Amino acid sequence: MSEKVAVYRRENFNAAHRLHNPAWDEATNDRVFGKCNNPNYHGHNYELIVKLIGEPDPATGYVYDLKLLSDLVKENIIDRFDHKNLNEDTVEFKNLNPTAENIVVVIYKILRAKIDSKYDLKLRLYETERNFVEYPAN
Amino acid sequence: MSEKVAVYRRENFNAAHRLHNPAWDEATNDRVFGKCNNPNYHGHNYELIVKLIGEPDPATGYVYDLKLLSDLVKENIIDRFDHKNLNEDTVEFKNLNPTAENIVVVIYKILRAKIDSKYDLKLRLYETERNFVEYPAN
Amino acid sequence: MSEKVAVYRRENFNAAHRLHNPAWDEATNDRVFGKCNNPNYHGHNYELIVKLIGEPDPATGYVYDLKLLSDLVKENIIDRFDHKNLNEDTVEFKNLNPTAENIVVVIYKILRAKIDSKYDLKLRLYETERNFVEYPAN
Amino acid sequence: MSEKVAVYRRENFNAAHRLHNPAWDEATNDRVFGKCNNPNYHGHNYELIVKLIGEPDPATGYVYDLKLLSDLVKENIIDRFDHKNLNEDTVEFKNLNPTAENIVVVIYKILRAKIDSKYDLKLRLYETERNFVEYPAN
Amino acid sequence: MSEKVAVYRRENFNAAHRLHNPAWDEATNDRVFGKCNNPNYHGHNYELIVKLIGEPDPATGYVYDLKLLSDLVKENIIDRFDHKNLNEDTVEFKNLNPTAENIVVVIYKILRAKIDSKYDLKLRLYETERNFVEYPAN
Amino acid sequence: MSEKVAVYRRENFNAAHRLHNPAWDEATNDRVFGKCNNPNYHGHNYELIVKLIGEPDPATGYVYDLKLLSDLVKENIIDRFDHKNLNEDTVEFKNLNPTAENIVVVIYKILRAKIDSKYDLKLRLYETERNFVEYPAN
Repeated sequence: MSEKVAVYRRENFNAAHRLHNPAWDEATNDRVFGKCNNPNYHGHNYELIVKLIGEPDPATGYVYDLKLLSDLVKENIIDRFDHKNLNEDTVEFKNLNPTAENIVVVIYKILRAKIDSKYDLKLRLYETERNFVEYPAN
Repeated sequence: MSEKVAVYRRENFNAAHRLHNPAWDEATNDRVFGKCNNPNYHGHNYELIVKLIGEPDPATGYVYDLKLLSDLVKENIIDRFDHKNLNEDTVEFKNLNPTAENIVVVIYKILRAKIDSKYDLKLRLYETERNFVEYPAN
Repeated sequence: MSEKVAVYRRENFNAAHRLHNPAWDEATNDRVFGKCNNPNYHGHNYELIVKLIGEPDPATGYVYDLKLLSDLVKENIIDRFDHKNLNEDTVEFKNLNPTAENIVVVIYKILRAKIDSKYDLKLRLYETERNFVEYPAN
Repeated sequence: MSEKVAVYRRENFNAAHRLHNPAWDEATNDRVFGKCNNPNYHGHNYELIVKLIGEPDPATGYVYDLKLLSDLVKENIIDRFDHKNLNEDTVEFKNLNPTAENIVVVIYKILRAKIDSKYDLKLRLYETERNFVEYPAN
Repeated sequence: MSEKVAVYRRENFNAAHRLHNPAWDEATNDRVFGKCNNPNYHGHNYELIVKLIGEPDPATGYVYDLKLLSDLVKENIIDRFDHKNLNEDTVEFKNLNPTAENIVVVIYKILRAKIDSKYDLKLRLYETERNFVEYPAN
Repeated sequence: MSEKVAVYRRENFNAAHRLHNPAWDEATNDRVFGKCNNPNYHGHNYELIVKLIGEPDPATGYVYDLKLLSDLVKENIIDRFDHKNLNEDTVEFKNLNPTAENIVVVIYKILRAKIDSKYDLKLRLYETERNFVEYPAN
């Protein structure tokens, strides 16, 4: 068995979004996205859980200092998306539908570039207490 | 001691909003409302807890059938505010800043008119898990 | 201002019940109680929160030792109702419809007799995370 | 790395059950199942979390529309088990002990037949906040 | 009915403590405080909920800016008690047993002096998810 | 697909600890461990989730009787660490820094020796609601 340990850090951000495919007419958008297609947006309290897998450093007993992980997530994710309109205020979702699935993949790509590749990275994103996503899936 | 019992029902809605006072200049709005003044809106998962106080009906053992209370809240509050932009899509907040305090008072006035005055009514509204409000206060 | 402090203890029990008024015909019971009228019962994880108000004892700093309060609730309430069919297995609900309202009043009467009257007592009972009750109401 | 994303939907149902092996005498049933062997049943608020793994549809950004997943779970699972006595009211548990393990496998088989095999399916079922199960296990 | 609204802010701190009465012998301390009398301390994740009652300012819609309330609680309470040994590191509990009851009264006195008396103030303090206290009690 | 089911049991313990490397000077300890290096300790409400994977016994429908699993965890883990100072009161952390990572590995080794190897074992340990760890990692 590997000596690897997983460490998790939870962070939160609140944002507005609209689900919409500009290639479709309004009737199709309404049928597919329902209330989420509201042109004036709605919003959520998003909860992000960041998981890193690695070996604890014998000198510290830490896989990764979770205070530093929190700072890294705040600088790269929370400051970027918190209290924003995902469709209007962010380059990431100008041309990408901000579903929870697309948001979690976008966040993964940003964080993956900032975290040493020796750590496995996995994310869970809650859009509501009943709807949530995970990436990568396995 | 009164034989009155309080009954509670929890419901949820997700909405976008912006905190802003149109009588103020942008610098003042930014100073007072900070990130919440984003002109493109942000959003929340709101959680509403409705409390009624009354005497249980001896025939049913119910103060108020919570299925009927849920239906009443859904018809009058959830359908009105869920997946909406509070500032843009609702008459209630066209000219009223949609702070949690103002939202809970607006919801109270709507529900109070729909619920027999023999019941005391009190509401709690969570904007996030760390920020919430209650009305009436006592 | 009073120097009184409120202390709270949470306990849990799991039970089956049926909502039914034997004075009514089945059609009326079905209309009023819906799925809760299932003659074969359904069940819940009940969560009970016991609140006592009193003055902290200067020698201990306790209003009431919460370990002793937990023991008292377990002996008088949890042992009586946990893993029971409220309608069939308890004398309290042989002739009383086991709505959350009636359950909380029954539990109050049992605990009130066991706790020194110098303490105010108030109970909250969750039937589900969305439906809960409180007694006394004020 | 796969581009697959996991999506989750939480649903709830409340049911009565009894744990019992009819091939055993009562003393053995009492020893093995303790309070759960109550012949008059007890009950729980079950919480079901359904996980699907698949690739987001580029046109929608959805792996699976969670509104449709919720509808599917309600039609096939919640309507079948909510406010029921699992032992008495369901064909699935007429001859199968309704432990959490057996319930989650039964639900899996029902949902697996209703969901396109291109999606991996995994379930978590909470019987209480302290006892829960998952299937498949890996 | 008053136009007053209650606003709430949740904060957290983690601390060590020991329950002990130096006027008693060890046998009495052990009997009364049990495991909590461990001379080497144990600890908790404390959760503090601050409630203010006041009238919303018509210009802002705020009873009290919860960002400012959070800052005030952090400066006066969290910085004082977080990651501290309440018995050893704080003047407040040098000669006062750090029960939840005594902690909530101490926090109340500190915050009451910092918050305009036009606001009613009430605190809830969770020591664990099952044991919590409130002050003032009414 | 395997017929294996995962079963989970949640338990809690409250403990004091200090993060510190005696091979380092104080300045380094302060820089690395910050407030967690407080020589007088701080503390947490730890939440432990034990996961076992195995095949349900056809006679019981249980993978593992969760009452017995709870007893086993209480005897071997909760009694050992609850209301203790991990650094001072336990042999396990006399010479091992009690980070969440090290605690979860220590608990794993204790439980692994007590549980039949036919069961896969995995642990999650919450130090706070925002910081938690898992072992083994995969």
